[in-house]
Amino acid sequence: MRAEIVAVGSELLAPGRVETNSAHIAARLSEAGVDVVARTTVVDEPKALGRRLVREASLLAALRSRFARLGRTMASVNEKQADLLEGAFALPNPRGTAPGQCVEAGSRVVVLLPGPPREMEPMLEEQVLPFLRDKLGTRVLRRKVLKVAGMPESDVDQAVAPVYTSVANPRTTILGSPGQVELHLTATGDGEPAADAALDELAARLRDRLPGRVFSEDGRGLPEVVVGLLRELRETLAVAESCTGGLLSSRLCAVPGASSVFDRGFVTYSDRSKTELLGVDPALVEAHGAVSDVVARAMAEGARERARTSIGIGITGVAGPDGGSLEKPVGLVHLALCRGGDLRARRCLFPGDRERIRFQATQAALEMLRRSLLGLEDV
Amino acid sequence: MRAEIVAVGSELLAPGRVETNSAHIAARLSEAGVDVVARTTVVDEPKALGRRLVREASLLAALRSRFARLGRTMASVNEKQADLLEGAFALPNPRGTAPGQCVEAGSRVVVLLPGPPREMEPMLEEQVLPFLRDKLGTRVLRRKVLKVAGMPESDVDQAVAPVYTSVANPRTTILGSPGQVELHLTATGDGEPAADAALDELAARLRDRLPGRVFSEDGRGLPEVVVGLLRELRETLAVAESCTGGLLSSRLCAVPGASSVFDRGFVTYSDRSKTELLGVDPALVEAHGAVSDVVARAMAEGARERARTSIGIGITGVAGPDGGSLEKPVGLVHLALCRGGDLRARRCLFPGDRERIRFQATQAALEMLRRSLLGLEDV
Repeated sequence: MRAEIVAVGSELLAPGRVETNSAHIAARLSEAGVDVVARTTVVDEPKALGRRLVREASLLAALRSRFARLGRTMASVNEKQADLLEGAFALPNPRGTAPGQCVEAGSRVVVLLPGPPREMEPMLEEQVLPFLRDKLGTRVLRRKVLKVAGMPESDVDQAVAPVYTSVANPRTTILGSPGQVELHLTATGDGEPAADAALDELAARLRDRLPGRVFSEDGRGLPEVVVGLLRELRETLAVAESCTGGLLSSRLCAVPGASSVFDRGFVTYSDRSKTELLGVDPALVEAHGAVSDVVARAMAEGARERARTSIGIGITGVAGPDGGSLEKPVGLVHLALCRGGDLRARRCLFPGDRERIRFQATQAALEMLRRSLLGLEDV
Repeated sequence: MRAEIVAVGSELLAPGRVETNSAHIAARLSEAGVDVVARTTVVDEPKALGRRLVREASLLAALRSRFARLGRTMASVNEKQADLLEGAFALPNPRGTAPGQCVEAGSRVVVLLPGPPREMEPMLEEQVLPFLRDKLGTRVLRRKVLKVAGMPESDVDQAVAPVYTSVANPRTTILGSPGQVELHLTATGDGEPAADAALDELAARLRDRLPGRVFSEDGRGLPEVVVGLLRELRETLAVAESCTGGLLSSRLCAVPGASSVFDRGFVTYSDRSKTELLGVDPALVEAHGAVSDVVARAMAEGARERARTSIGIGITGVAGPDGGSLEKPVGLVHLALCRGGDLRARRCLFPGDRERIRFQATQAALEMLRRSLLGLEDV
């Protein structure tokens, strides 16, 4: 089964605007075994489907009672939300006013979904996908994503290309983004067990080519994986950030349940705050500069000591666009971690703009922590 | 002039893949006064343009000499790169092997561009845009975006609809996202001055309908606007965050030059850290709970006092998915700000998931700060 996704809305074509529903729908259709062959975004203009609109009495009644429940009178402009394409059946929308619609024409199916993700996504899950799965039978398409941090895309590709280029099913795609590389594996098979077995076999071979490097095979991001490990090991964490300005704390606290392992974060942006909150000796800053290996170490140790946690992390660097020098260019970041007797520190030079440098610094710190928790050497 | 952009390539439809050329082309076409009405991504399959391919002797010769310059013999598989659509003229590609193409059919123009951005972008700038500008004359399209924080989309719409629905040019589109509403104005006119004048006139009328609410008309986000105001007023800031976990600090520090106004952030996730770092009285937490008006105020005051800044902000709330109760449900956030004698506090209840609640809390805190700096009352 092949599908085209059409996003309708003039605002979706505004420069800089990213339309996200299509990507979500494409991913879910793919997993259900539907081949997405086109995605289109068009402005709000009448499109000729060759079908009339018919006002549905039952939908109109439901609309009116929805407004009544909210204690409001329905303006007549809302009545058009009870219109269906001729021959279509409605997909109820308990989370909004506009229902979805579905029309079958010969072997083709046209599905209309509402725009707000919180209305569209449950309608897709609960109504559209089950309907399509019925039509598809047992031929399925399954996916797995292997995630790697701290390796350039070209290094990952060089390590795994001999494996994945020799395998036609599953198909492997490499997606690189700052601080992370993903291997997307897609298998087709007669039934989920066969497809999953093919995925697992290829994943094992790829993992062997990247020893200790694959941090996730279940969709979790690096912060979730690290919080999970901290919980398992019953360790606690405090972080001290300068150039990343709270981004590491924020990414950790975005994980539900982080409060059981994350005690506090120190965003020590000014030099004075590094001394007052972390006890960093002003003489160290004077002698080596705030962006230096010794200050990163002092920040990590100060964070652990002041918070009385088992682990401390320190990050200091030049995020740019200003403040760089020949000796300490934009992108230079010093990371340090202390955990029991395990002391690690690294000097990194990240490419890109301010946002990208800050993100990569937090990613490298999380990977440093993950490797420490797993007893792996730093890279 | 209206345009559709078609991106061709099976790999562009892989889940998670973002196709970036279309956005670049759409932005450049818009600025040149071309109205982009559709964007499409399709798999690699022959599409019927109703034109034959013709092998061009001159292109073939150029290809061969390119290979010769690189000291390589050209394999015959490359000869198809010298094919042109019947009636097309070639757009030379000094940065790669595949030329662009341009076909005119009546009032329509079809332009084919190579995929790699480093080949496509210069070809667009140097060859395609000048060609289109010749056709367009002086008719241009200009845009302006008005941004509003802290108002639901429906309230903004209700306030401004009487204005924008009565004006056909510029056209207005409302875009709502958590914590922010944007009014996108698009004007067409004979020349930039005429289009800009129409934009400015409508913007002034919309601004009048939203007194004190429009925080940006120049593309800047709320953190940039707030950092700009702090710099102008020579004020300094320290923030204390619980449920937002460093996100407010991180958004502020994402602005280049934030270091001149942002001194430090306290991510006081544990109750103990609120007392140790901010001096919050444990009896207050005991009596009212960590998520309470009095604790938010104590956090704001503690941050300002400990950092000796002119402004302190405190945020505490229930980001979920767990930890909610009947009295203090998921989404409840207390904000407080102290600045000289200006003390502000607000109780908010945000909808959505953990990520959305945290983002909206930082957005509300930034808007509270912006209003204080401008001498506007809190909302």
